[in-house]
Amino acid sequence: MGNVTKLAVLGSTGSIGQQTLEVVRALPHRFHIVGLAAGKNIDLLAKQINEFKPRFIYYCQDREAGTRLANAEYELLSLEDIARHPQVDTVVIATSGKTGLSPTLAAVKAGKKVALANKESLVMAGEIITNEAKLSAAQILPIDSEHSAIWQCLKGERQKAARLILTASGGPFHHYSSAQLKGVTAKQALSHPSWQMGRKVTIDSATLMNKGLEVIEAHWLFDMPFDNIKVLIHPQSIVHSMVEFIDGSIKAQLSYPDMRLPIQYALTYPERLPNPQLPQLDWDSINNLTFEQPDLDSFPCLKLAIEVGKKGGTYPAVLCAADEVAVELFLSERIKFVDIASLIEQALELHQVIGRPSLEEIMMADAWARQKVLQLTAGNSP
Amino acid sequence: MGNVTKLAVLGSTGSIGQQTLEVVRALPHRFHIVGLAAGKNIDLLAKQINEFKPRFIYYCQDREAGTRLANAEYELLSLEDIARHPQVDTVVIATSGKTGLSPTLAAVKAGKKVALANKESLVMAGEIITNEAKLSAAQILPIDSEHSAIWQCLKGERQKAARLILTASGGPFHHYSSAQLKGVTAKQALSHPSWQMGRKVTIDSATLMNKGLEVIEAHWLFDMPFDNIKVLIHPQSIVHSMVEFIDGSIKAQLSYPDMRLPIQYALTYPERLPNPQLPQLDWDSINNLTFEQPDLDSFPCLKLAIEVGKKGGTYPAVLCAADEVAVELFLSERIKFVDIASLIEQALELHQVIGRPSLEEIMMADAWARQKVLQLTAGNSP
Repeated sequence: MGNVTKLAVLGSTGSIGQQTLEVVRALPHRFHIVGLAAGKNIDLLAKQINEFKPRFIYYCQDREAGTRLANAEYELLSLEDIARHPQVDTVVIATSGKTGLSPTLAAVKAGKKVALANKESLVMAGEIITNEAKLSAAQILPIDSEHSAIWQCLKGERQKAARLILTASGGPFHHYSSAQLKGVTAKQALSHPSWQMGRKVTIDSATLMNKGLEVIEAHWLFDMPFDNIKVLIHPQSIVHSMVEFIDGSIKAQLSYPDMRLPIQYALTYPERLPNPQLPQLDWDSINNLTFEQPDLDSFPCLKLAIEVGKKGGTYPAVLCAADEVAVELFLSERIKFVDIASLIEQALELHQVIGRPSLEEIMMADAWARQKVLQLTAGNSP
Repeated sequence: MGNVTKLAVLGSTGSIGQQTLEVVRALPHRFHIVGLAAGKNIDLLAKQINEFKPRFIYYCQDREAGTRLANAEYELLSLEDIARHPQVDTVVIATSGKTGLSPTLAAVKAGKKVALANKESLVMAGEIITNEAKLSAAQILPIDSEHSAIWQCLKGERQKAARLILTASGGPFHHYSSAQLKGVTAKQALSHPSWQMGRKVTIDSATLMNKGLEVIEAHWLFDMPFDNIKVLIHPQSIVHSMVEFIDGSIKAQLSYPDMRLPIQYALTYPERLPNPQLPQLDWDSINNLTFEQPDLDSFPCLKLAIEVGKKGGTYPAVLCAADEVAVELFLSERIKFVDIASLIEQALELHQVIGRPSLEEIMMADAWARQKVLQLTAGNSP
């Protein structure tokens, strides 16, 4: 109680990064920002530096611009050096894509508290990261709403869960048939019905790839066999996930879809703190919570991800990389929505898997898959 | 782990008592039945004694029949003496009505684990019982599905809850208008849509009195102000209750309506044990969970109970006693369904309340209220 947590926020200008800083603003006596890092948005990063006066900064796009930003007042470090710095208690990994992997590993090896919003780290290198965390006693604190829900439901329980039930909004194309999905546009896919998120994760949410990646994360975070992880479509996005225990009892976590809650929970864990900015559920307006089985035929990405999670090795890295490139191609209108899944599937089929890969082998699989998807679509014009 | 709990089941032939013995049968290495007590059903009690070979028995209806049952093999004790016996670890209070109060108090004073299904104990004497429990370090383990749900959701949480949300099935007359309720019969009232329970609690469930009593119980069990306890109608009876925390996060507990789960949870707490007899929720058949505000005009018992809970003193004893008599009169067709609430209201209005009453004063208020309701209905013919 009353202790000030020294925070480094990697990816501070993205959606999760900005919401992390909102939580810090709402609980100013609780946190001290010692590190800020961003990839592209130098104007916003400059504002954040000016407001929070961190000790360490990182800017990826342009070394010279970063040096000017540091301006002899702030120390310009690499993502990894910020993540493992002795002055840092908790590292928020809010970078998107594979950029998160290396600083996550640095923070884990340094035994930090690692508040993890980046999906790729655990999906690509779950075995390496969870093994390192055991060695260093680092704590991985999930920030995803689904994993936070599961983590909240597990609080205080002595026995392992029997089954995890991840909920999915179903995205903007819930109940679309395979035929209907052929014609959908990037603009439609970017209109998420319940969550405000970044572009990549919004498309992943429309394909259900997002849920597939979360199943793989849940496998690593909670040491749960894939066959005991279930996905349910819950379009209202109020129940964020559930845990079933060995006596058949289920606990669920509910709240409006607002990432500030799981962010705050991770940062204040094991305490909860009042934050008047976090909305209270209004039971006058919530009167119907619905649940459905996902349609794996129309949304093959979910099935692909779970299969890949079970197979392991370098397959998950290929899945992530192929998805990242395919989503970019879809957003730039060079492929159709339904091509995302088929490109990933082709890349997986062509991949020569390596079992229990090193970090280097994971990175090589990532690079291979990116190139492969580009090759497969070389003829497509924008 | 592996320890055998020595159990006394008071009210072993009633609905909760029989289900407690089912849990014991399912987990035979975990429990040893040392005490069985029943009020009326001597044939079933004799069977149970023969199966579980307890050390202590009690039979209320007829002392001589009890002595024959004990047959020099079993010790015939009072409910209170069983409840406080050094050979007993956990006392299950499954008696209905005010009979539960005195053995609950005896068990609490003796510092036992008290698995409490009896509502009247905490409603009539919540202050006395919770104060005694603090002195003796007795643990009160709720068996009601709603309080068990709240208790499960609070597990491991460091901070007190901000708000409790008790769910209610709404009973068989959910959505009935006041006018429609005038004509309903005892047979209709006994047809509960989701729970199989005893007759008294089934009628209390139809009037929502049951939920009112549970609000008062929740107030004492979880030290929660009445204004922070909310009731929601949830006809599917899958979400058994919810807890809202100070950060706005809500946890809910879900399962089929089956009392064996909360009974087992109370008896094995803080562990959970697998019990193949406890059904797993089937998400193929559950696709809609609905929530509504209760209609306090058509179901005035809920409002009455909450008001009485806030006022305290001997009012809750009058509420319980008047309700018990009124329900009996309704079941024997001497009053109408809507008369239950109006009789209780009249008794409360006529009552000369005593603040912070002794147990004797509570019992006197109980006796007064019973007589008063009979007086008020003296002219009614069966």
